[in-house]
Amino acid sequence: MRRVFGRVAAGLGGLLLVVLGIAVVALGLRWVQVWLFYVPMGSEHASEKAAYLATIPEVDPADAPNFVVIFFDDLGWGDLSSYGSQLIRTPHIDRAAAEGLRMTDFYSASPVCTPSRAALLSGRFPVRSGTHNHVFFPEGSLLGTFRKMAGVGNEIATDEILLPEALLAAGYTTGMIGKWHLGDRPGHLPNDFGFQEYVGVHFSNDMQPLHLFRNDEIEIRDETPLVDRGSFRDEDADVEMVGMDQRKLTRRYTEEAISFLERHQDRPFLLYLAHTAPHVPHFADPEHAGSSEGGIYGDVVEDLDRSTGDVLAALDRLGLTENTLVLITSDNGADYNGSPGNLRGRKGEVLEGGQRVPMIARWPDRIPAGRVSGEIAMNIDIFPTLLALAGVPLPEDRIVDGTDLSELFEKGAPSPHDLLFYFPTLGGEPAGARDARFKYLASTGDLGRDKPMLSDIHRDQEGHNLIRRFPEDGKRLGGAVARMKEEIESNPRGWR
Amino acid sequence: MRRVFGRVAAGLGGLLLVVLGIAVVALGLRWVQVWLFYVPMGSEHASEKAAYLATIPEVDPADAPNFVVIFFDDLGWGDLSSYGSQLIRTPHIDRAAAEGLRMTDFYSASPVCTPSRAALLSGRFPVRSGTHNHVFFPEGSLLGTFRKMAGVGNEIATDEILLPEALLAAGYTTGMIGKWHLGDRPGHLPNDFGFQEYVGVHFSNDMQPLHLFRNDEIEIRDETPLVDRGSFRDEDADVEMVGMDQRKLTRRYTEEAISFLERHQDRPFLLYLAHTAPHVPHFADPEHAGSSEGGIYGDVVEDLDRSTGDVLAALDRLGLTENTLVLITSDNGADYNGSPGNLRGRKGEVLEGGQRVPMIARWPDRIPAGRVSGEIAMNIDIFPTLLALAGVPLPEDRIVDGTDLSELFEKGAPSPHDLLFYFPTLGGEPAGARDARFKYLASTGDLGRDKPMLSDIHRDQEGHNLIRRFPEDGKRLGGAVARMKEEIESNPRGWR
Repeated sequence: MRRVFGRVAAGLGGLLLVVLGIAVVALGLRWVQVWLFYVPMGSEHASEKAAYLATIPEVDPADAPNFVVIFFDDLGWGDLSSYGSQLIRTPHIDRAAAEGLRMTDFYSASPVCTPSRAALLSGRFPVRSGTHNHVFFPEGSLLGTFRKMAGVGNEIATDEILLPEALLAAGYTTGMIGKWHLGDRPGHLPNDFGFQEYVGVHFSNDMQPLHLFRNDEIEIRDETPLVDRGSFRDEDADVEMVGMDQRKLTRRYTEEAISFLERHQDRPFLLYLAHTAPHVPHFADPEHAGSSEGGIYGDVVEDLDRSTGDVLAALDRLGLTENTLVLITSDNGADYNGSPGNLRGRKGEVLEGGQRVPMIARWPDRIPAGRVSGEIAMNIDIFPTLLALAGVPLPEDRIVDGTDLSELFEKGAPSPHDLLFYFPTLGGEPAGARDARFKYLASTGDLGRDKPMLSDIHRDQEGHNLIRRFPEDGKRLGGAVARMKEEIESNPRGWR
Repeated sequence: MRRVFGRVAAGLGGLLLVVLGIAVVALGLRWVQVWLFYVPMGSEHASEKAAYLATIPEVDPADAPNFVVIFFDDLGWGDLSSYGSQLIRTPHIDRAAAEGLRMTDFYSASPVCTPSRAALLSGRFPVRSGTHNHVFFPEGSLLGTFRKMAGVGNEIATDEILLPEALLAAGYTTGMIGKWHLGDRPGHLPNDFGFQEYVGVHFSNDMQPLHLFRNDEIEIRDETPLVDRGSFRDEDADVEMVGMDQRKLTRRYTEEAISFLERHQDRPFLLYLAHTAPHVPHFADPEHAGSSEGGIYGDVVEDLDRSTGDVLAALDRLGLTENTLVLITSDNGADYNGSPGNLRGRKGEVLEGGQRVPMIARWPDRIPAGRVSGEIAMNIDIFPTLLALAGVPLPEDRIVDGTDLSELFEKGAPSPHDLLFYFPTLGGEPAGARDARFKYLASTGDLGRDKPMLSDIHRDQEGHNLIRRFPEDGKRLGGAVARMKEEIESNPRGWR
C-alpha cells in the first residue's frame, strides 16, 4: 500500500513537474523570440502606400474645406442632452447639432477603443490593420509583452494609409491633439502617420505612465506613483497627481486645439481632437467640478461640452465656421458609467449600447441646419467622406470598407450602406449585421441559449428574438455575415 | 540531479494525493451526513405558528373580498403594452390596468424566482424563510444535493406562515395553480402550506422531470427524454415533448383556474395563479404560435394575456368582478430574452431591470379606475395587504417586512414605505435601497470600480454615480442599508 502510494505520488509529481517545466521553457523561449525578433505588421503594402501617397494631387487652398474631428472616449449614446440625457447639459454640442445634422443610427466600428480609432483613421474594418483584438497596451508593460507573445500585435500596421497621410499629401496641414492608442513604439506614433503636429497621450488614461507628448518629446511627465493612481478607479476626485494632472487635460487639449486653428487658419487643415475623456478614471476640471447634475461623470462630459464650445467659438472668431466640417462622435458606447440611453449593452459588447454612438456633422456651407437622420452609417465612413470632400481619390490596392457620406450629409440622401457589420472585441470576424429595420447577431453569447438572434431594432431593446417570425430576413442577414466572414478569412487585410 | 527531481516529484505528488484524498473523504462524509441526517429549517417557531393560526377569526362570507393573484415568471417590466412594449400586445392585461391601478415603481423582493415567491407568500424578506440563496433544485438532483451539502437548504422553512394558511384559517377557500418552487420534499409542498387545492409543477420549467401534479398525485408525467428537452434552450418550438407538453401548460392552468372559480364562487377565495411562463424554455400554444410581433417570447406573453382575459371573463360571468381584487405581477425582471423597458439590468441583478416588475391591481368595488401610481412598493406588501383586507391580524411573533397597501390602492395614499431594500441573488443582506428619488447600491460589482453608487432613479438608467454630489442622501440611504444589514445579521429570521 505504502509502496503503491509512493509510486503513484512519484509518477503524478513527475508528470506535473515535466509539464510545468515544458510550459516555463516554452514561455521563456517565446519571450526571448519576441524580445529579439519582434517585427510589427506592415511591410506588405509599404511600397503601394508610398506610390499612392505620391500620386495624390494638391488641393486648391482657396476651395478646400477644413476638417475638425472631435472624438470622445467612451461617451455613451445617451450622454448628451441632444441625445436624451436628463442629467447632463451639453448646450454647445447641442447647438452644433441644431446647426447641422444629428444622426441617431451612427456606429463605431468596434465596441472598444483601439480598433474603433484604427477604423476611423483608415476607413477600414479593424481586422484590416491588425487592430481587431481588444486594445493596445504600453510597450514594455506586462500586458503589452503578453500581446506580442500571444501573436496579436501591439501597434497598427505601418502600411495602413491613414487619413492624415492622405490629406497631408493633398496639401492639408494636419494636427492631432489627444489620445492616439494605435501603438507607442517609435515609428508607430502620430507623427509617423502624417500628423505634422501631435500633442497628446499614447494610450488610455487608465494606463501608465501617462506622459503628455509634444511630437516625440515628453512635455509633461506623469510622476504619480502607482499606488496613488486613479487607474481602474473612477469618481475618485481626491487622487493626488504628480506631473501630469488629468483634471486639466481637457482644458489643455482645448488650448492646443485653438492654438492649432490660429496658427493654421490660412490653409486647409485637418484637426483630429481625440479627447481622453470620459474614459475612466474620471477627473473633473476643478473650475467646474460639482456643477453637473450627472455627478463627476457629468462634470467631465460638461467639460467636454465647454471645450467643444470654445473650439467652435475659435472657428467663429477666425472666420472659419462656414467652410469647416466639424464632426463630433465617440469611439464606442458607454462603459460601466455613462448612459447608453434606452439601448441594450455597453462598451465591449456588440449590442447596440456598445457600438451606437452620437454623431453630429456641422458645416454651414454645405449641410442644412436642423436635420436629424436615422440612416445607418459607421465611423469607417469618415475616411472616404473626407477624402471625397477634399477631392482625393481612394487607394486602389486595398479595400476601403467605408463609404462616402457626403450626399447623405449635404442632401439628405439615403445611407449608402444596405447593411452595417458589427465586430466583436476579440477576433476580426463580424458578429452580426443590421439593415434599416433588423439586426442579426450570429450568437447571443448567452449560456445554453447561444443561437442566432434577429431583433426589430427600433421597437425593442434587443430582447425579443424574431428569427422564426422573419426567417427570410434572418437568412438574408445571416448569409451576409457568413459571406463577409469568409471574405475576411481569405483576405483579412483586404488587399485587392 | 535525477535524484533531486525524483524527490521533489514524489513530495509534490504525495502532497497532491493527500489533499485530494482529504477532499474526497470530506465530501463523502458530508454527503452521508446530509443523506442520513438532513433536517429542513423550520421547527423553531412551529408552535407560535400553530397558535397564531388557531386565533384567526372567521371572516363574514357575505362581506369578505376575493383575491386572485396572477404571478408571471420572468416577465420583464417592459413586456406588456401598457408598460411600453411595442412588439407584444396584451389588451386584456392592459384593460385590467385601465380598470384599476397600474404601478410603475413596484418591485419583486429578489431578482430571482424562489426568494421572490417566498417573499410574496410570507410578506417577509427572503432571508427570513431561508430562501435567500438563489433557487431551489429538484430533490435528489445533483444541484439539490449540492445545495444541502453547502448548507443553504432546498425548501422554505416550515414554520413560515404563508398567505394561504392565514386565509384558510379565516375561512377562505385557497387554491394554487402553477409553479411552486419553494421545495419539493413531502411536507414542503403547496398542500402543506394551506392550499386546499394545488394543480401545478414543483419547480421551474427548465428543471426536470416537470410532472404536473394535482395535490400529491402526478396527473401528467414528464417523459420527454433528457436529450430532447428544451431546458436551457428557448425559442425551440420543434422539441418533441412526451407526456407533459409545455405548449399547453398556460391553457391547462387557465382551465383549472376557471374551474376553481366556478366551484368556489359562493365563498371568499384566494386563487394564486403562478404561471410557468415566460420563463425559458419558451413554448407557444400551437393555436396562436407565430401570431405575435414579438417572436416566440411574444407568443408566450400573448398566451398569458389571453389566459388573463379568460380568467377575468370568468369572474364577469360568475358575477365576481366587483368584489374580487385581482393582482397581476411578475416574480422578477426579464431574463436574457424579454424587455426591461428602458431600465438597466436583468434577472439576477439588483439593478432596476432585475427587480422592477409590472403591478396591476383591479378591484371595481374599491379601487378607482384609470390610476397610474409611481409610489414605491414591493411584493412583500401583498401578504399584509390581503390580510388587512380580510380583517386578519398579522402574526406577532415575527417581523413582517411588508406593509399594508390598501390605502394606496383605494385612496391613492402615498407609499407606506420611506424606502425599499434590494436583495441580491446570493446572501440575505441588502444590496441597496431606494426612496422616491434616489437609489443607493453598496457596491456596483464592477471590477476595480466597486464602490457605493447613488442614482437619480427616474432621470437616468443607473449610469451616473451622484454620491459625491448628494453626499447626505448617500449617507442616509447607505446608513439605512448598513442598519438593515446589522439587524438581519443579528436576527436573520426576524423573530420578535
